[in-house]
Amino acid sequence: MPAAPTAAILIIGDEILSGRTRDANTHFLAENLTEKGIGLREIRVVSDDHDEIVAAVRALSSRYDHLFTSGGIGPTHDDITAEAVAAAFGAPIGVRDDARAILQAHYQKSGTELNTARLRMARIPDGATLIDNPISAAPGFTLQNTHVMAGVPAIFQIMVGSLLPKLTGGAPVLSQSLRIERPEGEIAGPLSEIAAAHPKVSFGSYPFIQNGRFGANIVARCQDRAMLDAGVSALRAAFPEAG
Amino acid sequence: MPAAPTAAILIIGDEILSGRTRDANTHFLAENLTEKGIGLREIRVVSDDHDEIVAAVRALSSRYDHLFTSGGIGPTHDDITAEAVAAAFGAPIGVRDDARAILQAHYQKSGTELNTARLRMARIPDGATLIDNPISAAPGFTLQNTHVMAGVPAIFQIMVGSLLPKLTGGAPVLSQSLRIERPEGEIAGPLSEIAAAHPKVSFGSYPFIQNGRFGANIVARCQDRAMLDAGVSALRAAFPEAG
Repeated sequence: MPAAPTAAILIIGDEILSGRTRDANTHFLAENLTEKGIGLREIRVVSDDHDEIVAAVRALSSRYDHLFTSGGIGPTHDDITAEAVAAAFGAPIGVRDDARAILQAHYQKSGTELNTARLRMARIPDGATLIDNPISAAPGFTLQNTHVMAGVPAIFQIMVGSLLPKLTGGAPVLSQSLRIERPEGEIAGPLSEIAAAHPKVSFGSYPFIQNGRFGANIVARCQDRAMLDAGVSALRAAFPEAG
Repeated sequence: MPAAPTAAILIIGDEILSGRTRDANTHFLAENLTEKGIGLREIRVVSDDHDEIVAAVRALSSRYDHLFTSGGIGPTHDDITAEAVAAAFGAPIGVRDDARAILQAHYQKSGTELNTARLRMARIPDGATLIDNPISAAPGFTLQNTHVMAGVPAIFQIMVGSLLPKLTGGAPVLSQSLRIERPEGEIAGPLSEIAAAHPKVSFGSYPFIQNGRFGANIVARCQDRAMLDAGVSALRAAFPEAG
């Protein structure tokens, strides 16, 4: 079985770092990548700062098969992601005819002026492929392995929807989750033995507190169905009360 | 005015990367840091992997005044954060008497056994200070500038509550937000001029779509009240309809 492609997400967002806004895009994309069989390995949030974005794009795009970015591609002065991504790859950037045509057609329909600020959204690096934005027209783009998308969740989601079907996924990692209403300190011993006996299955223990009671969701993950089933059976035998 | 201390957050969490769980801790801590006058500059999420955690702890702790970590300090085999943080700083780690005493007292009260798995939670690096956990006793710790806390949100939050009052904050960054129900493409031009005329005020534009209409929240930030007020007045003059 070929290894699943790997990915990172880079959120450009002062407003996330200040606590003003709660990031919703990483969770949405994480779920979609898992379904697609692309392994999300790292998420970073950096501020709206040119050098920070350039450094993060270089680090993440060189390390993983795909990098997905969110935020900073609008028309205002603090929208600097397109320039930073272009700089990270040493690609020239300017208003591109294809992107300008998309914006022109969109604004003509509503009789809105394609002013200088809006024209900023047609700045696309040379060599990049556009990502459709059926909501507000201004496209995202893919430059090499880096997919640059909007920060507004509705637009981010529709861009992910345009983009993901074009990417090649891997064999999806199968998973099964068991809910055990016991403190992790009682689960840990047997779980550790089961994990050692099923080395190809990855077992994660995610504790929770609900109504003042401790418990954990044990998630078993494996690319192979039979191995996963064997691991889960062992869990059920050790924790017959598991839900 | 002295510069505000800087910080990063590192989330150790396969379950966030897989999309299974939605991270709540970064948003909570981001809000608290801003209130405290500590500037959060970066957030990373990495997988439950020793080398990944070590690399991220080294990179972030050397770059910022504080590093806060969340996750991976429970009793199960996949809880490897304490070892990784110790390794990042080259600190020896083992079961420490003070931490063991806390766990012993806690479990004795409920007549619960302090078994081998639970004793893992008393593994604390040499030289670290404990962080109180009034919910389930198992302490977090501060090693140098790195604050290691639990992933379960209720415990993370109470640890943040124990820890933050002990840290020195900076002059808080003052901010004011205006909601403008116009597309960003119309806001961008005047906003760019206002930003240029008020160089000490940072203006961020955070677009939204609500009921199919486009708008943006414009957030002005500055450490100086008079400068902030001047910037906001300019915004109100340019956008009299702003809420």
